[in-house]
Amino acid sequence: MDGFGFIDGDQPPLPDPGEELFCHVRLARSPRVGTATFQRLMAEYGTAERALEALPHRVSRSGKADYCPAPKDRIEEEIARASAAGARPLLLGHPGYPARLAEIDDAPPILWALGDCALAHRPTVALVGARNASALGQRLAANLAKELGAAGQVIVSGMARGIDRAAHMASLETGSIAVLAGGVDVVYPRQNSDLAAALSTRGLLLSEAPMGLQPLARHFPKRNRIIAGLSQATVLIEAAERSGSLITARMALEQGRDVMAVPGNPLDGRAAGCNALIRQGAALIRDAADVLEALDTPIRQTPLRTNGFHDQTGHWMGEEPLPDRLHQMLHDLITTAPVPEDTLIRHLGLPVPQVVTALMDMELAGQIDRHAGGLISRRV
Amino acid sequence: MDGFGFIDGDQPPLPDPGEELFCHVRLARSPRVGTATFQRLMAEYGTAERALEALPHRVSRSGKADYCPAPKDRIEEEIARASAAGARPLLLGHPGYPARLAEIDDAPPILWALGDCALAHRPTVALVGARNASALGQRLAANLAKELGAAGQVIVSGMARGIDRAAHMASLETGSIAVLAGGVDVVYPRQNSDLAAALSTRGLLLSEAPMGLQPLARHFPKRNRIIAGLSQATVLIEAAERSGSLITARMALEQGRDVMAVPGNPLDGRAAGCNALIRQGAALIRDAADVLEALDTPIRQTPLRTNGFHDQTGHWMGEEPLPDRLHQMLHDLITTAPVPEDTLIRHLGLPVPQVVTALMDMELAGQIDRHAGGLISRRV
Repeated sequence: MDGFGFIDGDQPPLPDPGEELFCHVRLARSPRVGTATFQRLMAEYGTAERALEALPHRVSRSGKADYCPAPKDRIEEEIARASAAGARPLLLGHPGYPARLAEIDDAPPILWALGDCALAHRPTVALVGARNASALGQRLAANLAKELGAAGQVIVSGMARGIDRAAHMASLETGSIAVLAGGVDVVYPRQNSDLAAALSTRGLLLSEAPMGLQPLARHFPKRNRIIAGLSQATVLIEAAERSGSLITARMALEQGRDVMAVPGNPLDGRAAGCNALIRQGAALIRDAADVLEALDTPIRQTPLRTNGFHDQTGHWMGEEPLPDRLHQMLHDLITTAPVPEDTLIRHLGLPVPQVVTALMDMELAGQIDRHAGGLISRRV
Repeated sequence: MDGFGFIDGDQPPLPDPGEELFCHVRLARSPRVGTATFQRLMAEYGTAERALEALPHRVSRSGKADYCPAPKDRIEEEIARASAAGARPLLLGHPGYPARLAEIDDAPPILWALGDCALAHRPTVALVGARNASALGQRLAANLAKELGAAGQVIVSGMARGIDRAAHMASLETGSIAVLAGGVDVVYPRQNSDLAAALSTRGLLLSEAPMGLQPLARHFPKRNRIIAGLSQATVLIEAAERSGSLITARMALEQGRDVMAVPGNPLDGRAAGCNALIRQGAALIRDAADVLEALDTPIRQTPLRTNGFHDQTGHWMGEEPLPDRLHQMLHDLITTAPVPEDTLIRHLGLPVPQVVTALMDMELAGQIDRHAGGLISRRV
């Protein structure tokens, strides 16, 4: 007898590690399986293999009969390409996956890692900022990266031009992680091929994208959540209003992480995002000592919103609607403008698992899209 | 009978306005009469004339027999020169003196005013900063001055090169006050002669110095307390560590006024003072709207220390020492390093009026010096 109620001789075979990787990647790459659904399916079915078996049935319950998981050959190819490139998989829920990243709501089910995976388990600070950074900004990023590195912090950034490049270059000796929007074997931008080569040996390249994926604009905000999610704090250096760096900062706040910012002259547009964050309570950073001080005595910003549904009381306020009725209610509530999942749950006042299951069904049915930060919108 | 207990026919003659001005200026200019002592003598004797009469006796009680108040001819000359230059006196305790400035502990007993005195009674914001300001900093100062002026605020600054000049030039139309370290008829620096001419007609020049005084380095920190004291808030634009502008900011904090700062790149030394103030809680200013918002909803910084003795409980903890014994105790406590008066009072735990009187005697005896901000040191 074991703890799961199997009698001797009735135990399931131990999973083949290759098979486990294959099913994990295939589930993650299957249509309509976002990061949240991936985690809920895994929680429900225990293994990727069983979740994959149940997936067509779950989708057909939502009215789509001809659902197919991701094609097997595509997954085989992804794994083979990664193996050929020397990339290793970091699987959510398995050893080796960065612990801090696993904490966030929309942790990527898989990361491909090229380089020194041990770096992903050390204390990390993200340094992000403008691609068109000033010389002063790049110098400051380099100073920060070098001094934080000397203090034992691994630097996380996005391998873009400007601030990112300066931060990586200055932390190659002490520990540098680049999170990419495309595959870890795709160098973008081309000007950073020297940096990518250095990071793939002395540092670490991480991406949730399949090998070979050329990054598109829409991949970058998703990538930014990983930069923030890997890091105990995100420091912004020269970030304009509506910049990608501000998205990273917003995600860090949503994840309950510290956000810090280097100020700049208000007449320099590249300082606008940083100055605005400082006014909102982000620590003003002048040098590495300021970062280390803020890490030691974190002044937590109020998160922009509370993430997830585990904080909800799930109080029950009326008749339990039939699943069809609940789907209709959700359909009426969810528009093309993304809305936080917990707002929906609070609004409905129904038991949390019931709403979560209905939302998962709607996602699998292709009716809604999930976005970084727990936002949901109607698919157009 | 009047409220002061005089019977009809026994009333003192109304003071001659010219005589009142003369005595007020003479008391203020007399040796060993600092701003604090001036106010205490006025409070004790009611008029400058009576305080002047009592002054030699008060000083001789401290052991100096041959004390003389300021020479009469020097005061007559100061008043005559001011009159010739068209400057008007603003006397502490009399109508026309700026109400906000009268609130500070070391309010100047007299200000000479050249220009439009009505400006001193309107809402004011001080803009101060580096003489060697960057082009960006000067542009920002001009923008702030112009927009704050349009919003009804009079701009106060110090007519220095750089930030001060930019702030004055941009607020000539809407209201600009320059507080000078030398006499209001002395243009310093020479490069600002055009600005001084414009301010003396369309704006306002103020100084506590006698006419004709050439400013020395030690006059500037004293001048800075007037800039801060005139203003509901002091905004710093490009202020290095250990700069005069930081002295102004410290004085504003000591006076319980708002301090605000425009941030800058930490690698620019001219931003160091501003960034440090923001880290200490000063509002981060990007534009005039930020200043007006902070004026509306002041987030008070904790004053660096509490000023004056009126806040003290003056609890009595032991035998009351004889005056000689108290003088000796004070003599032992006060070194050449300036120490706040209220620290002394708190330390002694004696009745406040007793300590204050002893300190006044020691000042009149030439044993101690008073400095801006309520600091006291032993005279060397």
